[in-house]
Amino acid sequence: MSTPCVSAFRWVPPFAQGVVRDLRVRWALEEAGVGYEAQLLDFEESKQPAYLRQQPFGQVPAFSDGRVDMFESGAIVLHIALDSPALMPGDDAGRARTMTWIFAALNSVEPAFAQLGEIDLFHAGEAWTVERRPQVEADVRAKLATLSAQLEGRDYLEDNFTAGDLMMVTVLRILRHTPLVGEYPVLHAYQARCEARPAFQRALAAQLEPFEQAA
Amino acid sequence: MSTPCVSAFRWVPPFAQGVVRDLRVRWALEEAGVGYEAQLLDFEESKQPAYLRQQPFGQVPAFSDGRVDMFESGAIVLHIALDSPALMPGDDAGRARTMTWIFAALNSVEPAFAQLGEIDLFHAGEAWTVERRPQVEADVRAKLATLSAQLEGRDYLEDNFTAGDLMMVTVLRILRHTPLVGEYPVLHAYQARCEARPAFQRALAAQLEPFEQAA
Repeated sequence: MSTPCVSAFRWVPPFAQGVVRDLRVRWALEEAGVGYEAQLLDFEESKQPAYLRQQPFGQVPAFSDGRVDMFESGAIVLHIALDSPALMPGDDAGRARTMTWIFAALNSVEPAFAQLGEIDLFHAGEAWTVERRPQVEADVRAKLATLSAQLEGRDYLEDNFTAGDLMMVTVLRILRHTPLVGEYPVLHAYQARCEARPAFQRALAAQLEPFEQAA
Repeated sequence: MSTPCVSAFRWVPPFAQGVVRDLRVRWALEEAGVGYEAQLLDFEESKQPAYLRQQPFGQVPAFSDGRVDMFESGAIVLHIALDSPALMPGDDAGRARTMTWIFAALNSVEPAFAQLGEIDLFHAGEAWTVERRPQVEADVRAKLATLSAQLEGRDYLEDNFTAGDLMMVTVLRILRHTPLVGEYPVLHAYQARCEARPAFQRALAAQLEPFEQAA
């Protein structure tokens, strides 16, 4: 196994800084105590054939470690977690719960949040959004209410921090341009609790560093 | 380990018959040669506290087998695949590729397809959809073009059928109310190839059976 390599952008606009999906993989590697290198790409480079052979959708992150070549932040985080007790319990029941929350974050929660982000960040001012945005915000609030009930009286989605919390917090961050998470004190505290982890702070700083150099 | 139990609806409207997400789990269990029982729910039941303790979002499927209690179709299919060579190669590299495609299906492809389905099936006739639908259809076509290029000259996403193909085909089925997949011959043939598998046919028949009884 060689040093893991994670693809990331050399620069993104401010609205995306701190939420690009390589953050998830960097955070997982930091929690697992695994060193890594970043493969920094210009945006144009991410659409060229050489990179599309690594990542056919032209997105980041892609990941390789000499054993595996893969993409999709969810898959990569799960790959790291399957080898790390810091991210996933070793027993079948605990592994199943961690996988459940990773997929819940990405497939049951993120799509509504991403629709709101798409409206606010890419389609602001378009006529259709006036009618559509309240519908999407209602969907987002329903997800937030479910999550808030789930976390009531708990520090994490399960007994201890897992890759499921890691993923859910990166999904909550998609709403940072809105006041929505702040309206759910349980979720606000949960997000702050997870983001206070040194591993998260190191991962965030590492994503932001090239952006500051480019600026 | 007891007989696996998968939650599913006793009845859904015709537009949802054959695409409800318990289909994925039924198909995976059929490919793995594992028998199971269905826990059939009325829609109202799926929103009651007893079921919300199993599945906090009130969706299907939930899954238990005496070893694990979990939800999210992606997580359940992956849980089954990790124990079944029929759904995932046993080596690290092959496992990583299978996980990559499961997440690609659910997180990079499905959200665009689901937005189109949402417009056509739940918001038909609303004024905002006139401006928005062409944007979403363009996103859908971009995903279809990427997948078509990936599958050119191949039978499956990797060398052999895996849980990644299973998941991708169930995502392609979300577009069945449109002619879109048919416009990409490679994808049309891929979907037909996977749906011709006896395990898929058994899974589909099992999902549909209670709907026919209810009718």
